[in-house]
Amino acid sequence: MRTGGVLNILGKLLIVLSFTLLTPIPFSLYFNDGMVADFLRCACCGALMGGMMVVLFAPEKELGYRDGFAVVVLSWVLFAFLGALPYYFSGAMPSFIDCYFESMSGFTTTGSTILSQVEVLPQSVLFWRAMTHWMGGMGIIVLSLAVLPLLGIGGMQLFQAEMPGPTKDRLAPRIQDTARILWSAYLLFTLVEILLLMLGGLSFFDAVCHSFATLATGGFSTHSTSINHFQSVYVETVLIVFMFLAGVNFSLHYHGLRGRFSAYWQNEEFRLYVILSLSSVLILVVANWYYQTYTNMGENLRTAFFQVYTIMTTTGFGTADFNQWPAVCKVLLVALMFVGGCAGSTGGGIKVVRFLLFFKYARLQLRSLVHPRAVGTIKMGNVKVPQEVMISILGFFALYIGFFLVASLVVTGLGVDMVTGTTAVIATLNNIGPGLNLVGPTQNFGTLPPLAKIVLTFCMLAGRLELYTVAVLLTPDFWSMARKPIWRWSLKTPTNKGDGLVKSPSYR
Amino acid sequence: MRTGGVLNILGKLLIVLSFTLLTPIPFSLYFNDGMVADFLRCACCGALMGGMMVVLFAPEKELGYRDGFAVVVLSWVLFAFLGALPYYFSGAMPSFIDCYFESMSGFTTTGSTILSQVEVLPQSVLFWRAMTHWMGGMGIIVLSLAVLPLLGIGGMQLFQAEMPGPTKDRLAPRIQDTARILWSAYLLFTLVEILLLMLGGLSFFDAVCHSFATLATGGFSTHSTSINHFQSVYVETVLIVFMFLAGVNFSLHYHGLRGRFSAYWQNEEFRLYVILSLSSVLILVVANWYYQTYTNMGENLRTAFFQVYTIMTTTGFGTADFNQWPAVCKVLLVALMFVGGCAGSTGGGIKVVRFLLFFKYARLQLRSLVHPRAVGTIKMGNVKVPQEVMISILGFFALYIGFFLVASLVVTGLGVDMVTGTTAVIATLNNIGPGLNLVGPTQNFGTLPPLAKIVLTFCMLAGRLELYTVAVLLTPDFWSMARKPIWRWSLKTPTNKGDGLVKSPSYR
Repeated sequence: MRTGGVLNILGKLLIVLSFTLLTPIPFSLYFNDGMVADFLRCACCGALMGGMMVVLFAPEKELGYRDGFAVVVLSWVLFAFLGALPYYFSGAMPSFIDCYFESMSGFTTTGSTILSQVEVLPQSVLFWRAMTHWMGGMGIIVLSLAVLPLLGIGGMQLFQAEMPGPTKDRLAPRIQDTARILWSAYLLFTLVEILLLMLGGLSFFDAVCHSFATLATGGFSTHSTSINHFQSVYVETVLIVFMFLAGVNFSLHYHGLRGRFSAYWQNEEFRLYVILSLSSVLILVVANWYYQTYTNMGENLRTAFFQVYTIMTTTGFGTADFNQWPAVCKVLLVALMFVGGCAGSTGGGIKVVRFLLFFKYARLQLRSLVHPRAVGTIKMGNVKVPQEVMISILGFFALYIGFFLVASLVVTGLGVDMVTGTTAVIATLNNIGPGLNLVGPTQNFGTLPPLAKIVLTFCMLAGRLELYTVAVLLTPDFWSMARKPIWRWSLKTPTNKGDGLVKSPSYR
Repeated sequence: MRTGGVLNILGKLLIVLSFTLLTPIPFSLYFNDGMVADFLRCACCGALMGGMMVVLFAPEKELGYRDGFAVVVLSWVLFAFLGALPYYFSGAMPSFIDCYFESMSGFTTTGSTILSQVEVLPQSVLFWRAMTHWMGGMGIIVLSLAVLPLLGIGGMQLFQAEMPGPTKDRLAPRIQDTARILWSAYLLFTLVEILLLMLGGLSFFDAVCHSFATLATGGFSTHSTSINHFQSVYVETVLIVFMFLAGVNFSLHYHGLRGRFSAYWQNEEFRLYVILSLSSVLILVVANWYYQTYTNMGENLRTAFFQVYTIMTTTGFGTADFNQWPAVCKVLLVALMFVGGCAGSTGGGIKVVRFLLFFKYARLQLRSLVHPRAVGTIKMGNVKVPQEVMISILGFFALYIGFFLVASLVVTGLGVDMVTGTTAVIATLNNIGPGLNLVGPTQNFGTLPPLAKIVLTFCMLAGRLELYTVAVLLTPDFWSMARKPIWRWSLKTPTNKGDGLVKSPSYR
């Protein structure tokens, strides 16, 4: 690993993030909540940290695979640290563990909160909270559609074929081109949603914050009662539409915005996403009608649509306390928590495409049992799925089971009850937000023990970065490579060359 | 499919089963419980049914893959039907759905019961209940080590290399040879356990019934309080040892009984089985000590060992009400429910070997992410794992998720609460026995709605037959082949030849 080069890049990213810490200042001035100095302090802090890293560590012309993993994981870790400072300075959260949890929940677009009353935060800090979602969402789109495929992670290679943009050999220009294209869709949707929400009577502040939270499938609201605060069918409908859109692969939106609407329905994952979500709505409506949870059919339909998309896309906005719903609805919603959005969306979870492939393999195997002499292959669109994807999906599920089990054992081991503990892990590992029982939609994560919060923070990070990225950093193999001297001046000293610490080039 | 040939075989199997229905008669005479006539009636019923099938349908010289699936699934379905008759005639269970549930629970070695007081059954019927376990266990060993590998199911091909016995080309002799070898180990263990239990003060009747239930990892007891009835450390220790042995691949026991003890530890699956179970015991002991569930360390250790092996091997004997244990213990036990025993054992669940392969793929994938140019393969023992095994494992998990989800939705949809409903499905799909809450270790399945019982009966069957066997029968592909006239006389009538109903031979 080129540790110096990695730290240099991270420093630059921190400097960029520092500038975004200035964006809440206009809101602070408008609402006069006295946070101007605090945000300036945070920005300076970030710029100083970043600047020091850029000065101390030399840039590298080329970065390898391993460096890519380190940059991705450490950037989320550092961003969450810097993003936690405004919460800490606001004084509303005395424990830094809580601040870090909230910040990581923002950047990973999870939306789990430790606050019982979000109104205790100054308005500008609430804006910052939504802003972390939005930036996290941007990061995820680029990560899943441009960075991870290049690192060879998680079956996402499959989508390279569908990717818009030029396919150059070098890493950086390609990521930049792709990012620009995808972000234009993301930005456009955000602007349209802000406008539509304002037409529904929301203030500019509320419209911006909720649009940020929707498009990033985050789920932070500016009100403790979440979307219920507005009591508006119009607002809920707008949110349902944009949650749905946020759960779709953004490379499809790129085609859609250019008028190629057929691209949507031609995509198998999109079709499954639509079918799964609509059949879930149907089951919820029937069950809630049969068990008389709602007597008004309109309310029943609206709540079912809202809950399916808020859970399936892992947004986590609350309108109904589904903890009180019939058992069959709870089982279905917990199952949807695992599914998540499409690959290349801002949604979390295991992703629709992995389930699609899973069931394609089951069908292939069943066919080959009935016709033993037939040879079958699996296709996605028109592309044959290579064996590497199969291995990567098998491995992904193994990691998923591993992370889930270890985290659940630790959290329940700390005295949290079974349903709360396991659904808290599910809610964070899939980047959803609320779970059931004590972390249900009307509750929060604040009452959990500090160590449980740390474990859940880690789950958010691991889940968001498709497990592999984090797991790679936990292997001894990864670290055995980081032997090269990392300081800027040591690289410039000729005596350091050939000191035996640098391994054979093929290992870098 | 050669439907006629399949039905002919099933008829013969039914006749064999009819004879086993005579075995409870000595007990009935000894205890004078008035069931002699009933068992004779059941035996005649079975023999008549079987005889009619043999007379009506002609045997076939060769059976194909598809016929194998039909024989396996239908034999369990028919056996459970015939096995349910004694319960029905005893009058203790008025509903035939309950009788069929209990009988299927026996033959699939699940051990879930619908009785709150098993003592209401006459002694001879209790013996029959244990006998269904024992025969089910015999069936499973042969199925998983001889029949399913030939049908190409579930990654079990892997174990053919380790299989004892001659490898002839024809299906029948091979199955017979393998069966004889494996059953000798099964029979020997049963006899030794009966002896040891009688030395511990159990009556011959109790010793036989509990040995049958242990070796088959079934879990039916002759007492409502299960193993607690005996209040004996010695008895519990004997059961722990034999539950452990029943969860091991019986082809390893074949080697072990010939003095090749090294075969055990050389087997990777066995090693993982031992490590997993011992670390689970450790966690339970620490948690129960920390949360002061047990103040006596001896009791703590004994209960932990017993619970881990009764759950992990999917036996389901009760000694402790783990429903009252700390949350972390419940999470661990539920996780162990999924693991199950080794492949080729009588234990149910997903099987240790599948998890072993799963984690091997994760490690391979992580390595290839760190060293992108390295080429890796997966080995089990000294055999390279072929791609087909990978596909079959992926497909298995897809089916598992599918069965689990649909069954959970139906059961909770019928008004059963979430924890009861989902753990009831887990307990039956993995052939364990008890779940949590209303189907917990001190409760029973009797209070569930009838339709839920039917779904859970199906889960037991599907889980026991490695899902694929049942799933194949649910595909339209399978049935599109069953076009050949099936009646004995129609085959003999020349006019039926070339009537267009018989498809090209390659399709049969």
